[in-house]
Amino acid sequence: MKTVAAALGGSLLFATAALAQAPTWSPPDPSQRCPSKWGPNDERGSMNRQTAAAVMNAAKLIKTGEVIELGHVLGDKMPFFGTRRFDVHIKRTFMNQPSNRRGSNEEIVISEIGQVGTQFDGFAHQTHRNSHYNCFKTEEIAGRGLFTKLGIQNAGAFITRGVLIDVAGFKGVEMLGDNYEVTVDDLEGALKKQNMTLKAGDAVIVHTGWGKIYGKENARYVKSCPGLGVKAAQWIIEKNPILLGADNWPVEVAPNPDPQLSLPVHQLALVVNGVHLLENMKLDELVQKQAYEFAFMMQPLKIQGGTGSTVSPIAVR
Amino acid sequence: MKTVAAALGGSLLFATAALAQAPTWSPPDPSQRCPSKWGPNDERGSMNRQTAAAVMNAAKLIKTGEVIELGHVLGDKMPFFGTRRFDVHIKRTFMNQPSNRRGSNEEIVISEIGQVGTQFDGFAHQTHRNSHYNCFKTEEIAGRGLFTKLGIQNAGAFITRGVLIDVAGFKGVEMLGDNYEVTVDDLEGALKKQNMTLKAGDAVIVHTGWGKIYGKENARYVKSCPGLGVKAAQWIIEKNPILLGADNWPVEVAPNPDPQLSLPVHQLALVVNGVHLLENMKLDELVQKQAYEFAFMMQPLKIQGGTGSTVSPIAVR
Amino acid sequence: MKTVAAALGGSLLFATAALAQAPTWSPPDPSQRCPSKWGPNDERGSMNRQTAAAVMNAAKLIKTGEVIELGHVLGDKMPFFGTRRFDVHIKRTFMNQPSNRRGSNEEIVISEIGQVGTQFDGFAHQTHRNSHYNCFKTEEIAGRGLFTKLGIQNAGAFITRGVLIDVAGFKGVEMLGDNYEVTVDDLEGALKKQNMTLKAGDAVIVHTGWGKIYGKENARYVKSCPGLGVKAAQWIIEKNPILLGADNWPVEVAPNPDPQLSLPVHQLALVVNGVHLLENMKLDELVQKQAYEFAFMMQPLKIQGGTGSTVSPIAVR
Amino acid sequence: MKTVAAALGGSLLFATAALAQAPTWSPPDPSQRCPSKWGPNDERGSMNRQTAAAVMNAAKLIKTGEVIELGHVLGDKMPFFGTRRFDVHIKRTFMNQPSNRRGSNEEIVISEIGQVGTQFDGFAHQTHRNSHYNCFKTEEIAGRGLFTKLGIQNAGAFITRGVLIDVAGFKGVEMLGDNYEVTVDDLEGALKKQNMTLKAGDAVIVHTGWGKIYGKENARYVKSCPGLGVKAAQWIIEKNPILLGADNWPVEVAPNPDPQLSLPVHQLALVVNGVHLLENMKLDELVQKQAYEFAFMMQPLKIQGGTGSTVSPIAVR
Repeated sequence: MKTVAAALGGSLLFATAALAQAPTWSPPDPSQRCPSKWGPNDERGSMNRQTAAAVMNAAKLIKTGEVIELGHVLGDKMPFFGTRRFDVHIKRTFMNQPSNRRGSNEEIVISEIGQVGTQFDGFAHQTHRNSHYNCFKTEEIAGRGLFTKLGIQNAGAFITRGVLIDVAGFKGVEMLGDNYEVTVDDLEGALKKQNMTLKAGDAVIVHTGWGKIYGKENARYVKSCPGLGVKAAQWIIEKNPILLGADNWPVEVAPNPDPQLSLPVHQLALVVNGVHLLENMKLDELVQKQAYEFAFMMQPLKIQGGTGSTVSPIAVR
Repeated sequence: MKTVAAALGGSLLFATAALAQAPTWSPPDPSQRCPSKWGPNDERGSMNRQTAAAVMNAAKLIKTGEVIELGHVLGDKMPFFGTRRFDVHIKRTFMNQPSNRRGSNEEIVISEIGQVGTQFDGFAHQTHRNSHYNCFKTEEIAGRGLFTKLGIQNAGAFITRGVLIDVAGFKGVEMLGDNYEVTVDDLEGALKKQNMTLKAGDAVIVHTGWGKIYGKENARYVKSCPGLGVKAAQWIIEKNPILLGADNWPVEVAPNPDPQLSLPVHQLALVVNGVHLLENMKLDELVQKQAYEFAFMMQPLKIQGGTGSTVSPIAVR
Repeated sequence: MKTVAAALGGSLLFATAALAQAPTWSPPDPSQRCPSKWGPNDERGSMNRQTAAAVMNAAKLIKTGEVIELGHVLGDKMPFFGTRRFDVHIKRTFMNQPSNRRGSNEEIVISEIGQVGTQFDGFAHQTHRNSHYNCFKTEEIAGRGLFTKLGIQNAGAFITRGVLIDVAGFKGVEMLGDNYEVTVDDLEGALKKQNMTLKAGDAVIVHTGWGKIYGKENARYVKSCPGLGVKAAQWIIEKNPILLGADNWPVEVAPNPDPQLSLPVHQLALVVNGVHLLENMKLDELVQKQAYEFAFMMQPLKIQGGTGSTVSPIAVR
Repeated sequence: MKTVAAALGGSLLFATAALAQAPTWSPPDPSQRCPSKWGPNDERGSMNRQTAAAVMNAAKLIKTGEVIELGHVLGDKMPFFGTRRFDVHIKRTFMNQPSNRRGSNEEIVISEIGQVGTQFDGFAHQTHRNSHYNCFKTEEIAGRGLFTKLGIQNAGAFITRGVLIDVAGFKGVEMLGDNYEVTVDDLEGALKKQNMTLKAGDAVIVHTGWGKIYGKENARYVKSCPGLGVKAAQWIIEKNPILLGADNWPVEVAPNPDPQLSLPVHQLALVVNGVHLLENMKLDELVQKQAYEFAFMMQPLKIQGGTGSTVSPIAVR
């Protein structure tokens, strides 16, 4: 069994330590979560909640025409996780010959563009072993260069109600602790204080305050962060959101308090439930304006077969 | 003077042919167009027309919550102009060690991402000699890797009234000719037939039908195209639009009927007037549904110092 | 068994057809070929034959100082296998400020640089299932970004006797057929005609004539090619060469006459025997000058953890 | 004149300081150095000294077959000047379908590959204003993506006598000072101590000891360095070498003691005299073995239109 388990997937590292106790969570067996409630061929997961009704509900929230930007600028001050980068190289100006002397400039961009800046995670991005959302298998859908199923081009535009759950505000701090786990009590308490309830189709956005050090203390930013624990994420997911977002790099608390788990909320959301994640959000203006409810709008790039997309989402009210 | 002019900018090609007659248009002397009406330091041009009022006017047009995608998928069937590309390379799956066996996939994207697919042009992209919009000079703003002024990160989100001018429909064809110049009469005639008038702040989108061969006859798609002539572009620009868009690669007719001009509307819009361009739009659904008026929404990537951004704009009504 | 087989390695495609007869060759079980004759930790394979004696033997062959280039220029006319590319983007000239007005130019190169142009294959490049040369396992040596064992930086410089086996000349043609399999008889016949025998440590180079269409009929060049069959390759390998080279893209005949085999000589050489391959050689001058024996010199780039390197090898005599 | 001069070339930065005294050196007016002694169309400069005789002279020096590597490994510990990089991304293993289960790995490399690691500079790399070696003009030879003249593919292979001038050893130190200027006296003294004289066609390699901190103190390595002053470089160049090399990043002292000059030896060698430079050499083994005279061999990549090439040169004796 160990040999089979070891061989699965791409590059596997063997866990050899004897485990004294079971992990506090484990992903369900694929048979228990597939097929998806949206059908055995569904590739869109929670995007199925993006309906005309969701658009109308969001439009109703537009009272003054104010637009609040929720995305960071893509540039050299971004924190990067691991070996990722965002390189821009301006090419030589090309001066066209005809009499109007038109000069043309462009740049080549080299980046894991689905996984940098304010980023939107799709379902090709994560697996449990070799199994993605709706039990698509990595070896079957990873083609030469791109994924043949679950690509981010399936997402489409978001226009839905956005809800900001200001957990840091609820806890009376500007920024939660470097490794603070947001609990169900935190979420319930913050929503109650904001006099709000979650509804199906919401873009649920958690404010941890961690975004305060984005672009300022990048090494610390990516080393750990406060965020949703498994139970809190489960609690939100049961309310059928269209996505979970936060102003940290993984939405969830990292590392997880349980050392036997690696980013379990990524699996819980993306793999088990087909719920999208939105990371590295810029929430300072939203929080400062106490804009807890708004029309949330986002347009992921339609990268065919991509695992995600950097985005420039907005709140409108 | 000619020697100085020749030396300016990047790589210049000298026009040596004796010209028998003057070109039909020439860009005005920079002194005549600068400073911009929005001030000597303005970097945003027509985006200054994106106001709260524009948002409210757009929101009023949302009646049913229908969303129509106006952007093409970014993939290997895209037509590319010149040497541009859009390459995607999936990296090896990284299997994390802890017990929940979380596999992680991502890809590296290499592309002139401001100039591929459905693309939004900024003001760093084009010049007259070495002079950009609002007379910023290329040699002064082109840093190592990116532009220090006029970067696309200045644009922000678009939410405004969108107007589709169906010129192909007005002419009774599915697709205008390979090199057809759209005239002022065409625009006036189409708008009259649609019973509409342009207003300040509109995203003005012209349907040429050329998008029909996008991804199908790519060599033909990029070789030439129908589009706005200088006079027609000037006519729209006088109505203070926020952008000009079309379902071809340069918005304007190419090559220009006057062989002495290279894409003059690019200069007229981007350089002279600070009006954005939106190219390679996907208009088939909009046209088929006769959706001539709608809320136009677009979120360019905030690429610091970038010349443009690929985008996934939508029409909502 | 199928499940285990399926799980091994990266992305596996299942062979479902019932096989009426066995393939004409199959790679030996790893236990039969490991450890390598050079020891269980050896990463260098046939490069172990690059000794001071080999250098002296090569130096003895330098009689006139004539240098014949055996590598193609790396540029836009190269044939590419699959999705590979070689893109070059000149950056903007950077003009330094001090009085000597020093301008500096450079370009960014984006390429599978181990697998384009005249290319030298290393041992990280190929496997039998998940097993490389000397039974290193892919999942154990493929790190984030590069291979931690078997990297091409281990190769070092080649200076050894080079032998050209002019099979096309022996068969009386300029170019062997599009799918011609070079046999043991062909090799023996050509060597006999050239009045030569192979010695241990030789760089053995086969002339098929296929290089004639390199850069001229690229689609045909990569579609198939004449080259070594399994038996012929085995015959050479038994003589302990330092590498096998040819003027085609895989050294061996492709596709293999046995449809159940995919590039078996790649496995026979790189995986089973630890013998390097050198592809896409430029042999026209060598052949025209009837230079069958020469000092062969090659300097692979020391790309840490790389699978191969483009090279500019030479023949000196 | 100053205005015209300022406008020439790519991005120019204006020198505004009033200069109290003249710089200690200035590049000659182009008319004084063109055409090259090798003719008005020559693109190869000092490579014209690579003759059959040079090969034979080098071959004579091969006494024992010992090979000493002079190039660094290309990897993540390399120092980079400016914004350059060397990124390697392994792609997913591709497992071929036929029965021999052949897995294939490759990586994409993204780098200014002419300007990283042990690097060989060509003549497209540097200018005086807009003028290259042999008075080719940047705007005339910089095409879309690559240079149409002076490309590094013109260089070809080096096999010539190599001479190590151990200046650090002559001065009795392991490493010269962070900003030490090597003088004519230093060169003459070291050569005399080594009982050697320079000859035409030599690859002249200077040991400063700076290579000791390569990959160890990278920030310090690129911040400044000991190296040839203008007079010392001029002294060597008058002896008609094929290249100047050193174990630092610019061969010359940096910054130059004269603050009005930016890397003048680059101009003196590459632009004025058409002599190649070889930077970031690994000389520790050569020095430790006191190998002052040897066969120098180097094979630049034939990057069409490239400004330089990373290389893996060797010393053989």
